[in-house]
Amino acid sequence: MGMHQYLKSLSNLGMLDRAPGFFKFEKHTVAAHSFKVAQAAQMLGDVEENAGNRVDWRSLYEKALNHDYAERFIGDIKTPVKYATPELRQMLADVEDSLTENFINNEIPTEFRPAYRRRLSESKDDTLEGQILSVADKIDLMYESFGEIEKGNPESVYVEIYRESLKTLMEFKQMASVQYFINSVLPDFIADSAGDKEELKKITNQIVHENN
Amino acid sequence: MGMHQYLKSLSNLGMLDRAPGFFKFEKHTVAAHSFKVAQAAQMLGDVEENAGNRVDWRSLYEKALNHDYAERFIGDIKTPVKYATPELRQMLADVEDSLTENFINNEIPTEFRPAYRRRLSESKDDTLEGQILSVADKIDLMYESFGEIEKGNPESVYVEIYRESLKTLMEFKQMASVQYFINSVLPDFIADSAGDKEELKKITNQIVHENN
Amino acid sequence: MGMHQYLKSLSNLGMLDRAPGFFKFEKHTVAAHSFKVAQAAQMLGDVEENAGNRVDWRSLYEKALNHDYAERFIGDIKTPVKYATPELRQMLADVEDSLTENFINNEIPTEFRPAYRRRLSESKDDTLEGQILSVADKIDLMYESFGEIEKGNPESVYVEIYRESLKTLMEFKQMASVQYFINSVLPDFIADSAGDKEELKKITNQIVHENN
Amino acid sequence: MGMHQYLKSLSNLGMLDRAPGFFKFEKHTVAAHSFKVAQAAQMLGDVEENAGNRVDWRSLYEKALNHDYAERFIGDIKTPVKYATPELRQMLADVEDSLTENFINNEIPTEFRPAYRRRLSESKDDTLEGQILSVADKIDLMYESFGEIEKGNPESVYVEIYRESLKTLMEFKQMASVQYFINSVLPDFIADSAGDKEELKKITNQIVHENN
Amino acid sequence: MGMHQYLKSLSNLGMLDRAPGFFKFEKHTVAAHSFKVAQAAQMLGDVEENAGNRVDWRSLYEKALNHDYAERFIGDIKTPVKYATPELRQMLADVEDSLTENFINNEIPTEFRPAYRRRLSESKDDTLEGQILSVADKIDLMYESFGEIEKGNPESVYVEIYRESLKTLMEFKQMASVQYFINSVLPDFIADSAGDKEELKKITNQIVHENN
Amino acid sequence: MGMHQYLKSLSNLGMLDRAPGFFKFEKHTVAAHSFKVAQAAQMLGDVEENAGNRVDWRSLYEKALNHDYAERFIGDIKTPVKYATPELRQMLADVEDSLTENFINNEIPTEFRPAYRRRLSESKDDTLEGQILSVADKIDLMYESFGEIEKGNPESVYVEIYRESLKTLMEFKQMASVQYFINSVLPDFIADSAGDKEELKKITNQIVHENN
Repeated sequence: MGMHQYLKSLSNLGMLDRAPGFFKFEKHTVAAHSFKVAQAAQMLGDVEENAGNRVDWRSLYEKALNHDYAERFIGDIKTPVKYATPELRQMLADVEDSLTENFINNEIPTEFRPAYRRRLSESKDDTLEGQILSVADKIDLMYESFGEIEKGNPESVYVEIYRESLKTLMEFKQMASVQYFINSVLPDFIADSAGDKEELKKITNQIVHENN
Repeated sequence: MGMHQYLKSLSNLGMLDRAPGFFKFEKHTVAAHSFKVAQAAQMLGDVEENAGNRVDWRSLYEKALNHDYAERFIGDIKTPVKYATPELRQMLADVEDSLTENFINNEIPTEFRPAYRRRLSESKDDTLEGQILSVADKIDLMYESFGEIEKGNPESVYVEIYRESLKTLMEFKQMASVQYFINSVLPDFIADSAGDKEELKKITNQIVHENN
Repeated sequence: MGMHQYLKSLSNLGMLDRAPGFFKFEKHTVAAHSFKVAQAAQMLGDVEENAGNRVDWRSLYEKALNHDYAERFIGDIKTPVKYATPELRQMLADVEDSLTENFINNEIPTEFRPAYRRRLSESKDDTLEGQILSVADKIDLMYESFGEIEKGNPESVYVEIYRESLKTLMEFKQMASVQYFINSVLPDFIADSAGDKEELKKITNQIVHENN
Repeated sequence: MGMHQYLKSLSNLGMLDRAPGFFKFEKHTVAAHSFKVAQAAQMLGDVEENAGNRVDWRSLYEKALNHDYAERFIGDIKTPVKYATPELRQMLADVEDSLTENFINNEIPTEFRPAYRRRLSESKDDTLEGQILSVADKIDLMYESFGEIEKGNPESVYVEIYRESLKTLMEFKQMASVQYFINSVLPDFIADSAGDKEELKKITNQIVHENN
Repeated sequence: MGMHQYLKSLSNLGMLDRAPGFFKFEKHTVAAHSFKVAQAAQMLGDVEENAGNRVDWRSLYEKALNHDYAERFIGDIKTPVKYATPELRQMLADVEDSLTENFINNEIPTEFRPAYRRRLSESKDDTLEGQILSVADKIDLMYESFGEIEKGNPESVYVEIYRESLKTLMEFKQMASVQYFINSVLPDFIADSAGDKEELKKITNQIVHENN
Repeated sequence: MGMHQYLKSLSNLGMLDRAPGFFKFEKHTVAAHSFKVAQAAQMLGDVEENAGNRVDWRSLYEKALNHDYAERFIGDIKTPVKYATPELRQMLADVEDSLTENFINNEIPTEFRPAYRRRLSESKDDTLEGQILSVADKIDLMYESFGEIEKGNPESVYVEIYRESLKTLMEFKQMASVQYFINSVLPDFIADSAGDKEELKKITNQIVHENN
């Protein structure tokens, strides 16, 4: 058993839609999302470094690139399940961990296992790189919603996602990269959106002020 | 709370692909699959009735039409998970039951709850109608694979599905409708497939004889 | 000749779009529409039964499930043709009847013919079940239009469909299930639509009052 | 009423699939088909002119470009209906003529009507240009089938189309352009197809010899 | 070498999107665009002829039908490149001419070369037919943008395209067909668009008056 | 000017197809390709490190992730143009460099420019990381072709790509990671392909032996 099955499996992520049926005008595959999160993380890493913080780039890229690989075999389980209680969520998380371990033992050759065990474990930890990943993941979700807002999709769920994502970002407000995003990216983001500019501006001001 | 959310949710099943990325040349939505299973069950019911058996048509249609509605909120969890152990599968089944119950309590008005509790519970029971549903579900899976074989997809997994589905059918071989399917439908099915006729014929003979 | 051709043909309905080019943001296949009409009919049947009316469930499911099968071989002829006069429409209806009869004689085995002759004949008759089908068919059309309105499609044709469908529903206003739909579903439907809420509300009030 | 509705309607033909569900690997819209038929007719016209025949180019382009515009409002009625008898076909043709006349009177401004009455009437007449159109229409159908054969679709129906189209071409075998197609295009067509080369060659030899 | 490769290549134009990723709700293939430009040119030719001008119809159809064939082998190079300077554009134009000449020498049989050299050269010249092509090409671009505006796409780039296209049309304002389009088509075009009616009207008045 | 335009532009790469119209059964976007190349590079980096070579992981991930970003504004120009001579190719490369420089000066804020100038420059240099990128890029192309071969696409062009890619890999045959790929991945790759196993095996043996 070599790495052929792994290489072949990557194509699956190029055909697997994120949140099937949720985004109406632009579909997002897991592969494209992983690429965009790695790109956003790269930009956030630039800001951190320019602010004098030490970035472990290998760790940052590795975390971002691999954080959703397991979607391939656990699929929608990862999606926040609307009707789940906290207990059900914990049960699902346990199932995921077991499935991932079974996958590694069945499909990854021995010499690669430590690397993939690291890559497929929870990557949003308390390190700077883990935090950048948390932020980058939300930023891409905001841009995925932007793709709907920009084309005139009036369903309020996309503005909700904007609001929830921004709230999550504010939990990391001490980071230089989050400050940069809020001060230098969000204003252009809002100015560039169609129709809901005022609502987005109001939500933004409210959340940013509440959290400062 | 009325039934608007339920009616609106039906469109989701028209956009949700079965086994995303698995069928290459023909996508199958959960809605289309449910329609086809109900049609196959109807035909199998005709045969049973012609053979002198009493069919509870209301139950048969109801089971077939609703058997995959829960896919909407549990998604891929229902798909047989490749790396799961029996314990994990049981945990997933428990999760599903809880999610379904939560769904009914959150979205279905009181007066409709008994009906939907029945419709969303396990429908493949030991009644004639439950058995017809089991058979119809497999028959549609065979035709979904046929859609690949017929267009020249040489991946062996589709022949494997044929083999496994046929084995399952044989567990119901005492039913008049299964006999009809094997004797009067399968020969045309095989004759109509492209290229693999001989292999399908061999598999069929082997499984049918082994089980008689 | 067995039922293989019939079973195989069901996949066609999963690939055949309703009103090609008409719905812009969500395509609807004939199979998905048939599934949704059967689901809507099931809910309307619940209401009728709760109101003390006797529902022939076998007939109801059968009518709903099969009412558009003939689309497979007559295709767009069924769609109301914009430039047709009443005479042309009658000619087209005659053509359809002849095509259906030819289909049954050519593709359905003798022992199944009476059942399919019944299933493929005009199902929107004066029975309670035929009336429920008429209502369910319109309700699904309203939800198909809702799929456009909800995503911000401003073309006025979708509001027109809402208006025309509601007018048709009012012809069945004496039915308990229609009363339920107007009183307990429509308000949520309107509240959930994007942008045109006021217009939909005005249209609804006007049509409901005119007809009461 | 100006020509806005007409110009706007052209987009419909860019979204209307020919023979929905029939071609599996490559969809063909009515607009693309019309473009390709006009291109094939142009090439056939070159050959006729090189052979010393007089081509009325305006008529040739006009016939090819407009020959399927009416698909927009008569849709699938034009498709040869499998279960139709000759009487039914005649009835459908009469319906088409009436629909076309109604369309012109309702949507085309007076000063343009003579031109569109000519463009939307039967264009496959006995003139050289009408005959070139008949040939070009069949050639494009052969290339549409080629699109399936070349990608390995083993369904026999595409070879059947090749056979039937070639037979139709032979009815015009006295034309220089048909001779050119058979002698200088078909050999490359067959050599370029995948897998079925020998069968296509055999069919071709048989039909060409039978008709000479 | 015969014309098989050319005929086969036409299918490519039926699968090649214009400006990939630019139109969000309606994709436009090069084949469909060529068809629609030829149809628009035909209508403009009617107007010119009714106004007493002599139209060389063969030249008009030929120019319109073939004007984008070279997209097949030069692809996006033709699209105005956002970051290009005039020097870069000239270099790209030179590259295109060379590629086209190489194509003709490699794929078109000798006897057809003069015709295709003419058909694939710059067709928007100073003849009446070249001018009609310039106008028809812009008109189709306006209708492609209309396809977005009509469905509620609020991105301002589509209104920009309307404005720029109209400005280009005004450079041909002395033509009878352009006068017809502005006076008899544009008012219906604007009245039929969704939401931005007033803005489109304002832009139109401004550009038309500035240029008269 | 902040990085909003850059972040927004990433979605374009998720909608831009590689080699439009070339892959028939599986489309590959530039974003998915970039993700898969970064994953393949990561695996090759593991092998190099296990073999005792020092890998600059930051450089490796950065090169792989960004190597095709410029596709966004230069599109098909990068695709090897079939009818181009070496001179034309050089002209196109010069055009690309100028476009990239113009892009950076117009859209990237000053403080990020050095990083993006490095990321958007030619990354396939002579460093170990540059060589791994060259190999990973070809490996993904082989797997893209595999996606066609595996589904039975008999067009010979995909086997040609396999042959040409393998030849390129052999230019790097001294690398531990290339040896690993040839010895431990290719045999499974071939065994897993459908139909052409023997031909792929023959090609592989021939190329590997010729180059050893």
